[in-house]
Amino acid sequence: MANKPIVCAKDGIDITGCRVSLYPMKDHFAQQILTSIEKTNTSAVWQQTDLFSTLFRGEAPSVLDAAAALFINAYESKTHLVGEFTFSKGCPGDTAGDTFLNGEQAQPNKGKNLANGDFLVDCKYSFYVFGENHYMDEIATIVQLAETHGLSPRSAHYVTMLTGSASQLFAYFEAALAYAHDHLPHYVLEATVSVNSPSKKEAMPHD
Amino acid sequence: MANKPIVCAKDGIDITGCRVSLYPMKDHFAQQILTSIEKTNTSAVWQQTDLFSTLFRGEAPSVLDAAAALFINAYESKTHLVGEFTFSKGCPGDTAGDTFLNGEQAQPNKGKNLANGDFLVDCKYSFYVFGENHYMDEIATIVQLAETHGLSPRSAHYVTMLTGSASQLFAYFEAALAYAHDHLPHYVLEATVSVNSPSKKEAMPHD
Repeated sequence: MANKPIVCAKDGIDITGCRVSLYPMKDHFAQQILTSIEKTNTSAVWQQTDLFSTLFRGEAPSVLDAAAALFINAYESKTHLVGEFTFSKGCPGDTAGDTFLNGEQAQPNKGKNLANGDFLVDCKYSFYVFGENHYMDEIATIVQLAETHGLSPRSAHYVTMLTGSASQLFAYFEAALAYAHDHLPHYVLEATVSVNSPSKKEAMPHD
Repeated sequence: MANKPIVCAKDGIDITGCRVSLYPMKDHFAQQILTSIEKTNTSAVWQQTDLFSTLFRGEAPSVLDAAAALFINAYESKTHLVGEFTFSKGCPGDTAGDTFLNGEQAQPNKGKNLANGDFLVDCKYSFYVFGENHYMDEIATIVQLAETHGLSPRSAHYVTMLTGSASQLFAYFEAALAYAHDHLPHYVLEATVSVNSPSKKEAMPHD
């Protein structure tokens, strides 16, 4: 089963994965997603697209690089766009992607696609830790990291809210994943990132 | 902090919550969401809308009733719509919503708004259990319940996939939440529900 928290590794490197789903709130949403996929350099990760998401797997810094680029490349200045990200470490019983665990931690989008991430985003996210008794402490550490990155974490029901530039947010996720990779056998970071929501200007519901 | 897994209750009834975010992939997305909110009977739950989601809290059957109605009421036959649902039990340190824990388990949308849920949906979801040593068994039980409800669960990376009518899916969530409510101190069910995806017809990416 997909949720199986088996911990596995090749040469001591656990595989990291991210599911990215993009929701551009416009009639021509498909083209916006396709353009972003074309622009994103995925040479450092294993990838697969299904009905819901594009999935990247490999070394944590490379997965973050691809996921961040997919969102930043999909940005349009006037479109409300939401991205849903599920980052996780732990492999669900297959070896797809293992060839990308080569220790290089390549980030081919850094300094290129990722340089365009200076637009403002909001984020809700939750960090889940499994098989770890001190999991509340680990969550506190992850949220503290958001503070360090200038993202002003605020508590809300079932999630923590963040605000900052897209670049800041993905730099934070990279740091959080690096910490989690080193300290935790199995985790899930579930994040929803929103840009150009009309609710930011008008007092309207979540659209 | 919002992720705090404190277990609390009023008169022995743990509060259940659901964050629902709707993503209609069209230019006039806002109106579609507002119309759905207006149509949905939320008399049996505490509710709040923020930048990302509409949040319902109360007794599990009532929360499910409101969340299902919000999605079904947002359905349009030609619009690609995605809904993101985070169901959880456990209260993050406040008493908002406690007045709805009256033991009535009212479902004011059942047989009304929910009667329109005979359209086909796809779902990806993960069930997370905390503070429970046998959590793999609990996850297996929850997925087995999907089989019983005719939703053909399939494993994928980091999630399980389901297919069926919206009514079938929400009936399953209701059963899963009832099981989880009775057996588990703290859980999260994270689900993404998609309808009218063009990828269902054409071999296109996740749009």
